[in-house]
Amino acid sequence: MLQEGKTKVYTQYITFNTKKKRELIRITDKVKKAVEKSSIKEGLCLVSSMHLTSSIIIQDDEEGLHQDIWEWLEQLAPFKNNYKHHLTGEDNADAHLKNLLVHLQVILPVTNGQLDLGTWQEIFYAEFDGRRPKKIVIKIIGI
Amino acid sequence: MLQEGKTKVYTQYITFNTKKKRELIRITDKVKKAVEKSSIKEGLCLVSSMHLTSSIIIQDDEEGLHQDIWEWLEQLAPFKNNYKHHLTGEDNADAHLKNLLVHLQVILPVTNGQLDLGTWQEIFYAEFDGRRPKKIVIKIIGI
Amino acid sequence: MLQEGKTKVYTQYITFNTKKKRELIRITDKVKKAVEKSSIKEGLCLVSSMHLTSSIIIQDDEEGLHQDIWEWLEQLAPFKNNYKHHLTGEDNADAHLKNLLVHLQVILPVTNGQLDLGTWQEIFYAEFDGRRPKKIVIKIIGI
Repeated sequence: MLQEGKTKVYTQYITFNTKKKRELIRITDKVKKAVEKSSIKEGLCLVSSMHLTSSIIIQDDEEGLHQDIWEWLEQLAPFKNNYKHHLTGEDNADAHLKNLLVHLQVILPVTNGQLDLGTWQEIFYAEFDGRRPKKIVIKIIGI
Repeated sequence: MLQEGKTKVYTQYITFNTKKKRELIRITDKVKKAVEKSSIKEGLCLVSSMHLTSSIIIQDDEEGLHQDIWEWLEQLAPFKNNYKHHLTGEDNADAHLKNLLVHLQVILPVTNGQLDLGTWQEIFYAEFDGRRPKKIVIKIIGI
Repeated sequence: MLQEGKTKVYTQYITFNTKKKRELIRITDKVKKAVEKSSIKEGLCLVSSMHLTSSIIIQDDEEGLHQDIWEWLEQLAPFKNNYKHHLTGEDNADAHLKNLLVHLQVILPVTNGQLDLGTWQEIFYAEFDGRRPKKIVIKIIGI
């Protein structure tokens, strides 16, 4: 399916300020709303963290799985006191590594004016070092 | 090199139904064919899994390396019975974690009407929980 | 914020030849310069490795954290002699796994003619098997 048209680019920022240090927040509806506002019918939608200690991921909205993901993240990129980064006064090196592990961003197709997700795909903001305002960017390009 | 033109967007879905639970399937030629069909000369090509338990990766088409990758994936995101996700009746939490580990998607440049890959870069569909129909999306935007 | 215009696509390749086998090289300025040259005001900028043993990552430009990242990469994707890939005569299977772990690429928003990064986000070329010429691609699409 090939379509042609005039290019539009839409930009939106969203700020999160989580109560907990680590949190998974479902943002599928916010991204869908951005796609609607953009009036873009066909294109690509970037959703990206603007920080080094949070990520955007696509996963299932299932509480048990979320617990598995947190345990797994803690195993592969554990909180520890003795990271060298902590010599600067920081205490969040594990959050940087968790961000590297699951990548900071996703890019999603927009088709027929809608976010083109698989049946079980939900978009999550993954906070690894919260309790302070943190920003993501949604940037949509298309026709 | 800067080029201008009228925007085109091309969309294609491909369904896989692997015989094995875990499989790496080379799809470089399928993506190249999509780029040809799109008639897009310059742009970006998203190739993305529409599931939570399969991925698109770029790697070498070398059998020994593929075995190394599978062993490594199993070490870092092992199959286990006691994931909390399995309380829902599922048995594939490891496949979700493998998907998070290697990311669900890649985005590739299209240059001079061709997929602009490095010499050894091949695109693979990585199935972590197969034996059922699963879909990927190819979305190309450009001029 | 929605904007419309004529589509431009800009392409640039950069070659690295690191002195060390493993190195993190900050390339934020090179990517910013590419965005300037493109004259693109709103769009998306792909920065991607064209190899299987190097990556583009976004992280903090802090030396302690970089050491933490290298130790972590070596723990999760260690150099070993007995990878099956090494039966081909290669010795860099760990570099392939490191590339898979942190992903090969990032895609960044371009806003108001500038790379739209968070305050602490710096772009790095991550070399896992250097001492030979290796290429990355920057591809920007927008208006």
